[in-house]
Amino acid sequence: MKIAITGGAGFLGKKLARALLDDNELGVEEVVLADMVAAPDELTEDGRVRSVVGDVTDPDLLADAIRGDTDSVFHLAAVVSAGAEADFDLGMAVNLDATRTILELARKHGNKPRMVFSSSCAVYGGDLPDVVTDNQQITPQNSYGVQKAIGELLVNDYARKGYVDGRSLRYPTVVVRPGKPNKAASTFASSIIREPLQGDEAICPVAPETEMWLASPRTIVANTRHAHDLDGAAFGPWRTVPLPGFTATVKGMVDALAEVAGPDVAARVKWQKDPAIEKIVYGWPARLETKRAEAMGFKRDTDMQSIIRAFIEDELGGKVA
Amino acid sequence: MKIAITGGAGFLGKKLARALLDDNELGVEEVVLADMVAAPDELTEDGRVRSVVGDVTDPDLLADAIRGDTDSVFHLAAVVSAGAEADFDLGMAVNLDATRTILELARKHGNKPRMVFSSSCAVYGGDLPDVVTDNQQITPQNSYGVQKAIGELLVNDYARKGYVDGRSLRYPTVVVRPGKPNKAASTFASSIIREPLQGDEAICPVAPETEMWLASPRTIVANTRHAHDLDGAAFGPWRTVPLPGFTATVKGMVDALAEVAGPDVAARVKWQKDPAIEKIVYGWPARLETKRAEAMGFKRDTDMQSIIRAFIEDELGGKVA
Ligand SMILES: NC(=O)c1ccc[n+]([C@@H]2O[C@H](COP(=O)([O-])OP(=O)(O)OC[C@H]3O[C@@H](n4cnc5c(N)ncnc54)[C@H](O)[C@@H]3O)[C@@H](O)[C@H]2O)c1
Ligand SMILES: NC(=O)c1ccc[n+]([C@@H]2O[C@H](COP(=O)([O-])OP(=O)(O)OC[C@H]3O[C@@H](n4cnc5c(N)ncnc54)[C@H](O)[C@@H]3O)[C@@H](O)[C@H]2O)c1
Repeated sequence: MKIAITGGAGFLGKKLARALLDDNELGVEEVVLADMVAAPDELTEDGRVRSVVGDVTDPDLLADAIRGDTDSVFHLAAVVSAGAEADFDLGMAVNLDATRTILELARKHGNKPRMVFSSSCAVYGGDLPDVVTDNQQITPQNSYGVQKAIGELLVNDYARKGYVDGRSLRYPTVVVRPGKPNKAASTFASSIIREPLQGDEAICPVAPETEMWLASPRTIVANTRHAHDLDGAAFGPWRTVPLPGFTATVKGMVDALAEVAGPDVAARVKWQKDPAIEKIVYGWPARLETKRAEAMGFKRDTDMQSIIRAFIEDELGGKVA
Repeated sequence: MKIAITGGAGFLGKKLARALLDDNELGVEEVVLADMVAAPDELTEDGRVRSVVGDVTDPDLLADAIRGDTDSVFHLAAVVSAGAEADFDLGMAVNLDATRTILELARKHGNKPRMVFSSSCAVYGGDLPDVVTDNQQITPQNSYGVQKAIGELLVNDYARKGYVDGRSLRYPTVVVRPGKPNKAASTFASSIIREPLQGDEAICPVAPETEMWLASPRTIVANTRHAHDLDGAAFGPWRTVPLPGFTATVKGMVDALAEVAGPDVAARVKWQKDPAIEKIVYGWPARLETKRAEAMGFKRDTDMQSIIRAFIEDELGGKVA
């Protein structure tokens, strides 16, 4: 099986690549990592990895990454929320046009590759009910959400036409993200766990009672693979699935940190409201009823404590500062 | 006020142009009719009409039609359902790319024109509830519906960014359409009224009990103008509005024809099922609850009889064959 991952050097792309390479049953011949950033040695040292460094807005780069014998495409490259909001043209080019280029490549090749598109709960917004069901209309309130919603629609239509065997997943906010904060408005949700565990202070810009819709990297990678492995027919007439997550208050997240790593670590979280971030975050749904995904066998995280423990294990070598 | 209407030589474009030109309170200085087809003399003989003949997929044509001093754009040009399904690239170019070009023109001009985008109930499809509410998710099952849904999303985002004062309307199936049948799968809904009234037979390709969601041309033109005249704030955070319509069975439509024009006229409708058309039409919603539109002052037709009478008056000079 030959696989291409756009955004393959990113947070989720790297984890997905690792999981695919480690799966002995899948028969992976090649994993292409297409990203602006070079993939880490830890991945490229595997002879099956081909790193394609460049911009996905360049059709030649995509044509190099996705060829006529590519079986599966995981399209993860994206400009995240605050980035697409700050640079409208960049967001349109990366989040919309590159998605369309990939779909057109698949259509041109005619080999109907599987394609998993990582969408987001940012497609929801505005006046939302307390619980968002699978039938909720999409009313994105930022350009990133609009571009993801358009990507979903295109993937659906190209799938319906038989040009690609596509499926789109609406990811919850994924915690805990390792490394540095990024340009997503949700970045604090990872910072308030990650920084304290490494001995640093972190600022929480929203009220303690703020609820968020979360999933762990392990679950997201597993669900992304599950979406890939499912038969197309399992999606019925609509190939977009809001993924399961769990609801936590920010206070609940910090309490879980105290439970796992002690109150001194949790005390490194400082509360300092940022109205701009608050406004964005309060517009996101925090409670979804994801019956369809569950019926299709997608998994759900259960609690913040185990996510924090997994982060310490996966990213900090088991050590807390 | 300077107005541009794309698709201005089409069924609804011509009627809208007439209504705008006839409105003495609006202060119309110019109505540009941008269409592949030349506008009829009846319109161009008005000194305020500028006919721009060409393809909306040509950015130069659009730049000629929509200038820095254009106050309002009604974007009606489209490849209809069966057309976009038969020629995927044409549908994408006309229904998606041209819409984006218009939005980019407005952004470039920086004068924030009003823009009304004619979307469609074809954005719905697949597994639908008996009654579609304003909160219904969009799951289009044809490329036309996908392209309209993307147009709505783009209009929303360009409006949110302040690039255009846009609003999108989801039109019901508009009856009775004059002239020849077109490439819309719904075209029979007009044929079964229009042809008999002119002495010809018409074939109804769906079962008599088939329900449809309908509106009259008069109401659509009035509602399109109403959408234009409303203050942007009236739309709140979401600038797409499913328009009111009414539900009629095909049998009810033919019964209304008998009532208005006599049983001999109605007997000119022949019933001959076409499974391809049936499949498409059964996928459309026939009952919508359009609370939001009604609260915003959009109008609703009440019965088929008055629509048939209006058609006879507006299109047949009051005469039935
Ligand atoms: N992490 C989350 O909480 C979350 C939530 C919802 C959706 N998603 C979606 O999941 C996907 C992966 O997210 P992530 O957290 O791993 O993001 P990330 O930012 O860590 O990774 C994205 C990768 O895409 C690459 N990229 C961006 N623009 C590019 C361009 N023009 N050309 C080539 N490469 C480019 C970046 O270099 C980066 O490595 C994204 O599509 C994101 O929108 C993530
Ligand atoms: N009539 C309906 O029942 C109905 C229902 C839902 C939505 N709509 C939408 O309302 C709008 C108007 O509908 P209508 O019934 O008047 O359609 P129509 O087909 O009568 O008019 C469309 C006009 O657009 C023009 N056009 C098409 N492609 C073009 C191109 N590439 N360049 C220039 N001009 C082009 C055509 O020449 C035509 O005059 C359309 O956007 C349609 O999708 C109509």
